[in-house]
Amino acid sequence: MISLYLGAIEAGGTKFVCAVGGENGEVYERVTFATKNPSETMEEVVQFFKSHKLKAIGIGSFGPVDLDRTSPTYGYITSTPKLNWSNFPFVEEIKKHFNVPIGFDTDVNAAALGELLWGAAKGETGCIYMTVGTGIGVGAVIEGELLHGLSHPEMGHILIRRHPDDPFAGSCPFHQDCLEGLASGPAIEKRWGKKGAELADRPEVWELEAFYLAQAVANYILILSPRKVILGGGVMKQPQLLPLVRQKVVHLLNGYVQHEAILHRIDEYIVSPGLGDNAGICGALALAKRAMEQ
Amino acid sequence: MISLYLGAIEAGGTKFVCAVGGENGEVYERVTFATKNPSETMEEVVQFFKSHKLKAIGIGSFGPVDLDRTSPTYGYITSTPKLNWSNFPFVEEIKKHFNVPIGFDTDVNAAALGELLWGAAKGETGCIYMTVGTGIGVGAVIEGELLHGLSHPEMGHILIRRHPDDPFAGSCPFHQDCLEGLASGPAIEKRWGKKGAELADRPEVWELEAFYLAQAVANYILILSPRKVILGGGVMKQPQLLPLVRQKVVHLLNGYVQHEAILHRIDEYIVSPGLGDNAGICGALALAKRAMEQ
Ligand SMILES: Nc1ncnc2c1ncn2[C@@H]1O[C@H](COP(=O)(O)OP(=O)(O)O)[C@@H](O)[C@H]1O
Ligand SMILES: Nc1ncnc2c1ncn2[C@@H]1O[C@H](COP(=O)(O)OP(=O)(O)O)[C@@H](O)[C@H]1O
Ligand SMILES: [Zn+2]
Ligand SMILES: [Zn+2]
Repeated sequence: MISLYLGAIEAGGTKFVCAVGGENGEVYERVTFATKNPSETMEEVVQFFKSHKLKAIGIGSFGPVDLDRTSPTYGYITSTPKLNWSNFPFVEEIKKHFNVPIGFDTDVNAAALGELLWGAAKGETGCIYMTVGTGIGVGAVIEGELLHGLSHPEMGHILIRRHPDDPFAGSCPFHQDCLEGLASGPAIEKRWGKKGAELADRPEVWELEAFYLAQAVANYILILSPRKVILGGGVMKQPQLLPLVRQKVVHLLNGYVQHEAILHRIDEYIVSPGLGDNAGICGALALAKRAMEQ
Repeated sequence: MISLYLGAIEAGGTKFVCAVGGENGEVYERVTFATKNPSETMEEVVQFFKSHKLKAIGIGSFGPVDLDRTSPTYGYITSTPKLNWSNFPFVEEIKKHFNVPIGFDTDVNAAALGELLWGAAKGETGCIYMTVGTGIGVGAVIEGELLHGLSHPEMGHILIRRHPDDPFAGSCPFHQDCLEGLASGPAIEKRWGKKGAELADRPEVWELEAFYLAQAVANYILILSPRKVILGGGVMKQPQLLPLVRQKVVHLLNGYVQHEAILHRIDEYIVSPGLGDNAGICGALALAKRAMEQ
């Protein structure tokens, strides 16, 4: 109980990961539990952290969340369809038990910051982190700052071009055939009738997936000019996918963005997470570190 | 010659505008001349500013430009196809004659900053400024900072969905049917056989134009979460266009971005430039002001 740790919460819709760690991204101890209703879940969170002396806590949360510090609902999970979590005052609840600086952001912004500090974008001043899993989400750090604005970005839902031979209608309840509706893990499963992991030997599956992901990445590059593009999440576990995405991004940009990272070093520019599956929890640790420093 | 002014250069591929002005965006004097080769053009720039005592100069330039302060070619116009302007050391040339702080950025980033300081986004901490003219360009200020990264964004060239009934192949030499290739002023002219200004009474022209612009704006909103969206440039002079874009953006987002600016105040969220045709030159003035303050 003498040394001071950082606390980290990776709050997902299906599971929570909590960890205590240090200022270099080390994770000393962690627990994972299913996401139940807020009071039960907070109880478990508090139990876990209680035995540690913490100097700050970082929360990377599923969303949408309110990140506007001037808003009366700052630190809330807002309009989620997830039962009982709508309008949950996440930061307030944690503050009740731990009176330390709290960093709060989206899960993907957290992961982007973690990758920047200790992962694939180490040494850079910015990056984007895209997860292609149950949903598609993207976080961004731009010249050292986490990307916020009117609210937080929702880059997983951009419109992209449908492939002319793709009969799948798309699975997004809001936009049907937006990026997430066409290219998330569940979209792959609905289109092909099998889970992604069971489609490894079907090249057409990954050609089409790369067709969609590359369009999104090309648009992110044209709009944000990120210093590094990191692609993670369950779907990216298919090792053939990343090279296909790189190749198609280069083809789509067609020499327009005259930067050697894109023209000559695409393999170092569009990469896998340096922290692997720890991007999320290390990201929350990074938020704690930032909260403490600010 | 006693009071100190700010100098502003709006450097376009066809014309240069130079102005002297003040710290509240006032323009005291201005000249416009055709863009010739760099040495003749710089001569005219220097002549104009010579008679004023300047404390800083701002340059909003056509691109691509190098904005990386650590780069040996910082302040250059880089790989432009425009004759003789490729690898032109713009900042260096101006510094030779005026040893004052120089602000340098893209024309559209400048315009975004001008609109933020003195125009339609006054009081906000960020905005995007899109010009739909001979080309399509977008500048952005995010939480007070001009958007840079690996290089500067090139948002005019994002991929969007073609309208199924649009037979026009697109006019972008790099991407053919990217946004600029489908929706710039010249694209309109090539598709319909007449200049935009002569197509005012053809509703189908503006429906299609809004179809493309709204997709782009929706993607910018999802990716950047701007606090204000400002649409300028020659094509936006069609007064029927802005309401159509607003309506289609709301329709495309379909309630996903739960912010009252989009749900209830779209007319104040997607707007015309507050500075009108002065956005560019006032933007350069804003860059001068920033350079002086930093
Ligand atoms: N090896 C794999 N190949 C293809 N898809 C996979 C693989 N592993 C997981 N997935 C898909 O990724 C999705 C889960 O993504 P994941 O990032 O693990 O979780 P979540 O997004 O829920 O945090 C599921 O749709 C699953 O089918
Ligand atoms: N009133 C108008 N209606 C429609 N299009 C217009 C109008 N005025 C100009 N344009 C188009 O806008 C383009 C010029 O854009 P502008 O912003 O004025 O210049 P630039 O982009 O070269 O700086 C041309 O293609 C022109 O046809
Ligand atoms: Zn969607
Ligand atoms: Zn293009």
